[in-house]
Amino acid sequence: MRIMVINGPNLNLLGRREPGLYGDKTLSWIEGELRDLGSELGMVVECLQSNHEGELVDIIQRAGRDSQGVILNAGAYTHTSVALRDAVLSCGVPVVEVHLTNPQAREEFRRVSLLADVCAGSIAGFGWHSYVLALLWFHHRQRG
Amino acid sequence: MRIMVINGPNLNLLGRREPGLYGDKTLSWIEGELRDLGSELGMVVECLQSNHEGELVDIIQRAGRDSQGVILNAGAYTHTSVALRDAVLSCGVPVVEVHLTNPQAREEFRRVSLLADVCAGSIAGFGWHSYVLALLWFHHRQRG
Amino acid sequence: MRIMVINGPNLNLLGRREPGLYGDKTLSWIEGELRDLGSELGMVVECLQSNHEGELVDIIQRAGRDSQGVILNAGAYTHTSVALRDAVLSCGVPVVEVHLTNPQAREEFRRVSLLADVCAGSIAGFGWHSYVLALLWFHHRQRG
Amino acid sequence: MRIMVINGPNLNLLGRREPGLYGDKTLSWIEGELRDLGSELGMVVECLQSNHEGELVDIIQRAGRDSQGVILNAGAYTHTSVALRDAVLSCGVPVVEVHLTNPQAREEFRRVSLLADVCAGSIAGFGWHSYVLALLWFHHRQRG
Amino acid sequence: MRIMVINGPNLNLLGRREPGLYGDKTLSWIEGELRDLGSELGMVVECLQSNHEGELVDIIQRAGRDSQGVILNAGAYTHTSVALRDAVLSCGVPVVEVHLTNPQAREEFRRVSLLADVCAGSIAGFGWHSYVLALLWFHHRQRG
Amino acid sequence: MRIMVINGPNLNLLGRREPGLYGDKTLSWIEGELRDLGSELGMVVECLQSNHEGELVDIIQRAGRDSQGVILNAGAYTHTSVALRDAVLSCGVPVVEVHLTNPQAREEFRRVSLLADVCAGSIAGFGWHSYVLALLWFHHRQRG
Amino acid sequence: MRIMVINGPNLNLLGRREPGLYGDKTLSWIEGELRDLGSELGMVVECLQSNHEGELVDIIQRAGRDSQGVILNAGAYTHTSVALRDAVLSCGVPVVEVHLTNPQAREEFRRVSLLADVCAGSIAGFGWHSYVLALLWFHHRQRG
Amino acid sequence: MRIMVINGPNLNLLGRREPGLYGDKTLSWIEGELRDLGSELGMVVECLQSNHEGELVDIIQRAGRDSQGVILNAGAYTHTSVALRDAVLSCGVPVVEVHLTNPQAREEFRRVSLLADVCAGSIAGFGWHSYVLALLWFHHRQRG
Amino acid sequence: MRIMVINGPNLNLLGRREPGLYGDKTLSWIEGELRDLGSELGMVVECLQSNHEGELVDIIQRAGRDSQGVILNAGAYTHTSVALRDAVLSCGVPVVEVHLTNPQAREEFRRVSLLADVCAGSIAGFGWHSYVLALLWFHHRQRG
Amino acid sequence: MRIMVINGPNLNLLGRREPGLYGDKTLSWIEGELRDLGSELGMVVECLQSNHEGELVDIIQRAGRDSQGVILNAGAYTHTSVALRDAVLSCGVPVVEVHLTNPQAREEFRRVSLLADVCAGSIAGFGWHSYVLALLWFHHRQRG
Amino acid sequence: MRIMVINGPNLNLLGRREPGLYGDKTLSWIEGELRDLGSELGMVVECLQSNHEGELVDIIQRAGRDSQGVILNAGAYTHTSVALRDAVLSCGVPVVEVHLTNPQAREEFRRVSLLADVCAGSIAGFGWHSYVLALLWFHHRQRG
Amino acid sequence: MRIMVINGPNLNLLGRREPGLYGDKTLSWIEGELRDLGSELGMVVECLQSNHEGELVDIIQRAGRDSQGVILNAGAYTHTSVALRDAVLSCGVPVVEVHLTNPQAREEFRRVSLLADVCAGSIAGFGWHSYVLALLWFHHRQRG
Repeated sequence: MRIMVINGPNLNLLGRREPGLYGDKTLSWIEGELRDLGSELGMVVECLQSNHEGELVDIIQRAGRDSQGVILNAGAYTHTSVALRDAVLSCGVPVVEVHLTNPQAREEFRRVSLLADVCAGSIAGFGWHSYVLALLWFHHRQRG
Repeated sequence: MRIMVINGPNLNLLGRREPGLYGDKTLSWIEGELRDLGSELGMVVECLQSNHEGELVDIIQRAGRDSQGVILNAGAYTHTSVALRDAVLSCGVPVVEVHLTNPQAREEFRRVSLLADVCAGSIAGFGWHSYVLALLWFHHRQRG
Repeated sequence: MRIMVINGPNLNLLGRREPGLYGDKTLSWIEGELRDLGSELGMVVECLQSNHEGELVDIIQRAGRDSQGVILNAGAYTHTSVALRDAVLSCGVPVVEVHLTNPQAREEFRRVSLLADVCAGSIAGFGWHSYVLALLWFHHRQRG
Repeated sequence: MRIMVINGPNLNLLGRREPGLYGDKTLSWIEGELRDLGSELGMVVECLQSNHEGELVDIIQRAGRDSQGVILNAGAYTHTSVALRDAVLSCGVPVVEVHLTNPQAREEFRRVSLLADVCAGSIAGFGWHSYVLALLWFHHRQRG
Repeated sequence: MRIMVINGPNLNLLGRREPGLYGDKTLSWIEGELRDLGSELGMVVECLQSNHEGELVDIIQRAGRDSQGVILNAGAYTHTSVALRDAVLSCGVPVVEVHLTNPQAREEFRRVSLLADVCAGSIAGFGWHSYVLALLWFHHRQRG
Repeated sequence: MRIMVINGPNLNLLGRREPGLYGDKTLSWIEGELRDLGSELGMVVECLQSNHEGELVDIIQRAGRDSQGVILNAGAYTHTSVALRDAVLSCGVPVVEVHLTNPQAREEFRRVSLLADVCAGSIAGFGWHSYVLALLWFHHRQRG
Repeated sequence: MRIMVINGPNLNLLGRREPGLYGDKTLSWIEGELRDLGSELGMVVECLQSNHEGELVDIIQRAGRDSQGVILNAGAYTHTSVALRDAVLSCGVPVVEVHLTNPQAREEFRRVSLLADVCAGSIAGFGWHSYVLALLWFHHRQRG
Repeated sequence: MRIMVINGPNLNLLGRREPGLYGDKTLSWIEGELRDLGSELGMVVECLQSNHEGELVDIIQRAGRDSQGVILNAGAYTHTSVALRDAVLSCGVPVVEVHLTNPQAREEFRRVSLLADVCAGSIAGFGWHSYVLALLWFHHRQRG
Repeated sequence: MRIMVINGPNLNLLGRREPGLYGDKTLSWIEGELRDLGSELGMVVECLQSNHEGELVDIIQRAGRDSQGVILNAGAYTHTSVALRDAVLSCGVPVVEVHLTNPQAREEFRRVSLLADVCAGSIAGFGWHSYVLALLWFHHRQRG
Repeated sequence: MRIMVINGPNLNLLGRREPGLYGDKTLSWIEGELRDLGSELGMVVECLQSNHEGELVDIIQRAGRDSQGVILNAGAYTHTSVALRDAVLSCGVPVVEVHLTNPQAREEFRRVSLLADVCAGSIAGFGWHSYVLALLWFHHRQRG
Repeated sequence: MRIMVINGPNLNLLGRREPGLYGDKTLSWIEGELRDLGSELGMVVECLQSNHEGELVDIIQRAGRDSQGVILNAGAYTHTSVALRDAVLSCGVPVVEVHLTNPQAREEFRRVSLLADVCAGSIAGFGWHSYVLALLWFHHRQRG
Repeated sequence: MRIMVINGPNLNLLGRREPGLYGDKTLSWIEGELRDLGSELGMVVECLQSNHEGELVDIIQRAGRDSQGVILNAGAYTHTSVALRDAVLSCGVPVVEVHLTNPQAREEFRRVSLLADVCAGSIAGFGWHSYVLALLWFHHRQRG
């Protein structure tokens, strides 16, 4: 089973960007952990990041062809991108929405998710553990 | 480590209530699974359900004294109860909000959660696996 | 045929509470009339009242097991209770929403009904005759 | 006692128009039933239909002179016509608002009734029985 | 003269719950102070607390029969309970709304009070002195 | 100079309809007064009333060809008719909007006028004197 | 194939009404062009106009019986008439909504169409060519 | 009979301020005309202007003691001043609201009048004739 | 201890202005009572009133220098004045907001207070006793 | 005459993406048809697609230099992109907005078009025929 | 060239009022700096402050006669004063809106500026440098 | 000191795009002026433009590493891009928001800035001088 972990804008700054809010782990450290956990569970985990909405649409379209599931932290585009929503709707594999922090506890404009209702499920607020839980779900689901 | 799993109104009907939406597992079957998984992981899992908002406030207050964490599916009260919100704020242990379905994909009035921003995190849309992921988080977190 | 007549908060004060608005009949007088009309029509009419949202949820759940229809005046909870709405959705028997006065002619917050769209039908504004009409409907419907 | 049953726009299509929603009875069949029930109860029932807002205003004004009560299904004009509302306010006899389906369970713009708060009462959701219940109310009320 | 002091959900946690916000006095300490001040002024002060909306409705209904005035801190239910509002409207004795903090200075959803416009008056923001001022008002009012 | 006085729905009931609100003068009495004042001032005053939106559109279109000015009390259609607005915009003669009462002091939905911003001016709240003032304006304006 | 071209309120004034906005072609000129193009394409084009909402409902109901398609410019009623919407929903033949100008580029209240989502399609902003394109669509569609 | 004509902020600039919108008459020219017309009709007309909200409140309070009627163009304060509204409510003589232009045809924030519903009537859009019509109303009203 | 009692627009009319609503006590009578109660309690009470927003800002700024506390009934400016709000924020002494009536029970625009969340507390609905309770609070607070 | 047909995000998936909604034609099939129809009509049709908002801005800027008209299906960016709107405003050639489905009949957020009011016209709901009609318009318009 | 620097309510407290937010410079210190910089640049800078809305209107009207430009920090009146807006519109010289802090980063009601769209430009968030930049603009603009 | 001047979508068209609104200077001319002024003041000014949201995020992230300040005209993305907002929040150097025109004086959707409250300050409405003033601020600030 191949899982794509896709991160959106500014998440490449993790570890340096408002660490009090987002934690002190860098994105590459988190991606390493997920790849390791993936191999333990017999899954291939591929990790991608982009600041470009259009590139993220391209990547999700490709994930529909090349993987069995997506873990998506769309960052700021969660709240504004109908294009990503349409890509999720069309890609044909289950997509799990994850967030490091709980968007409900932040600015008003972060409380709207254009993705939530087209994803298989949502996990928010557990820091980098949000990704871990999403991966565990793909594992559990696979087992039946 | 002692975890309380608290279910709100109408969740006692699980398995019979709109099974196409909520699945065909009964609440007692789910509670059994969680207690079993809990013992595997070395945790004591106590399960409670009530249709009464006031009783749920009482239970959460008690959970603050008697447990190290709460898994809360407040059902319909998620969207209307400031009293539960205040109880969560006051109880002093981490509370994880779970939902079987994704409230974002349902009626307008279910898109507002009065609890989300005072909980440690939220997990929604994975059916009874939502509870499992919450329990796994308490386990991972405990390990460091 | 067994019909449950369920009254919500403060309706136990009928006859004393703002009689200019709600009329001078007490709840027990109305319940007596409905039981009498029921026996005339060959129906058993059971009457219950509670000020507690959770108890009303319990009662509606029970009505789904013990009766063939519900006449529900949820009073103030009509406008605020998602929990009652979910109970009506789950109970499996037709529920008729009744009101003594017409909520549309009152305060803004009484113009929203969380129950109307999940009930079989609504009858409002005819004083205690609202209950009578609801009972007559169950009778007519039964006849075909 | 003379009762006028007034139907608004597109109700002349009943039986052919979305029968899954509105039922398979034609308007003339329903009008026949109401006239028959009326004579049983010693009432004269006159039935009128128009697609024209202005004509409906004329008819309601006349009903204030020629009848003792009105059963009004204003159809689409329920949600948009201040003119009908003013006619109801001015006509001087009790008007009962009826609907075949429950407008609360349909499109957003059907949830507003400009008539509800100036009518004696409202009955919605019982198919053609909604008219029957309205007629029974005039009968009961007459008896005291 | 008998005055009932009624406290709503989570106020039983006073002294422990967010002391920076609500102060360090426990509810029983405040109730003691009020009973003492009451006897000084020749009034009997009875104190009750509940986390249950329905129970608070029951208590206010009873206060209408057994007391000459109510001091009500409905806590979270202030903002959501139409049922409590109806109970206040029906109970027949003057009710004074009190709050420890000023709800206007807090979250958006705490700025709406369903009780304010049916109470005799409102006192907010003075900590436990809010109750004292309410009691003094009953005393002054009694004197003329 | 020829002025058309056009009255909309339910204004044919003036004198009988809520006299406490609209006064006890009938429409034909007012029309007589306006015709008399018109001849005094050397103007021909033609008066028309209809309950039909479409007919009022027809009349305003004709007024654009046959008169030098319009005094329009569109009644309920003031608040709902884009068609009348378009007719006023197209008719090519000045239209003065009049109201017997002040719509700003009535129901919410009467506070919106779709006509006000396309009329030459508005006069409201002076009872039947509102028509008189409008006629005087056409007279003054003619004089320069 | 028989197509009805139905025009709503004030469109009889085309050519004279705000020509800078709506163009200088009269309605009868446009209707002539459409009839000519229709015969070229082997279609019978029937043209009707009314300022009356009710008459337009009657016409659309008749179009459902007598034609294979409708081209509808409902003018001002586009934005206010639920009755026309219901007639379109019930008439059983495809209806194409056309506008001379683009309602999105005009006043706020013209941005809402009660018809758009029940029509087969919408064409707006091309002046009288909007009607031509609609006719061409019926032609293309017929060919397959 | 003594009438006070009260003008609010920036109306002292009339004639120079946006003459295309407000006309080329200065305020003192208009005041002269009104005093002349007043003496013709046997009325004393006193004219005052201020840019200060508080001073306008003082003036209206005094008008309640020293005059039999007020003609008020509150300018910008029409849309923002609850204090002027309260002064009008308290002054005890009829107040007529006038505007040179039609506020409904201008910016959004000018469409709200805090004065309209507490004034005897409103006249808007006739340039300086708006004041004349108001004066004529006091004259007509006085005559019976 | 020196307390300033500051009254805003139209409160100089107390006793004459809508006495059914505001009571029949004049402002100077109330000020006398407060000065007397003040001396009893060992406090100097200074009373000021103005209809001018700017003057009230000046007075509150001065109160910050010359007194130990303010009792403020800002009247209509409560709902519209950001300037008074800023003055309260800056003055450096505790300000208690008082109202004779309960603004929550009145017009929509009186339900917003721009002052409430920057004042030490609010007291509303007790007629002139609202001022008395505010004064008592300064006394109690002083005692500790 | 050279026409550019520009398609936005996810339209490269046509034929595979929700075919029940969008039809079973692929984008390249539609582009072929348009190029063929273009040559028949003596027009050069150039087709481009991108998932990237910025790239679409670049393309529209270029279309302003290299073509005489644009047919634009901006897909999801229709509802969110002010940048595309500005590009359309600046490009200097007529742009026709097309949609396969009718956005008015879909989710709330698809009902807002940031492009509609700056385009020459809009065509929606006719599947791939929407493009054909747009092309025919450029042809007709060219002929005069 | 003569420039007027006009400061609104509570800005006379600068240096003492919330220095963490507004800085520790007093208004007279800032005015000194601006006068000095003015003379360096060959401009006369006149500085005025008032807490009174009406006085500020008077001052802006005078500035239109006596100066070539205005630098306006209207403080709290920025968000509430239509009267100041009208004065700016009428004064005939360019007005630059300045703020010490960025109102967009503060309370909701500070995000609306009634002045921004009638000023030549806006400068916000640079502390007392905001005034300096405005002065530099007048200088640059003068040079061409 | 190194300052980056970053321009967003469609600003590459300056000089050709709606010159009546944006002026006739091209972007490269403005960039030249800024580089010249920069060297005069001893600053290195680097200028970049992109139509791509993602590229702008990349550039701002780089500016956080390579410069001491940013002058940002995000054009259309000002109103829609949470991603740019997050980039500004994370970049660690002061960002000044500039606009050629005043967005407050334009379309509704341009009145919302997602950047304003996270920037050091805002300058709008001065044409290309807005950039100059921003540069002068960096200079003044540097001097102390």
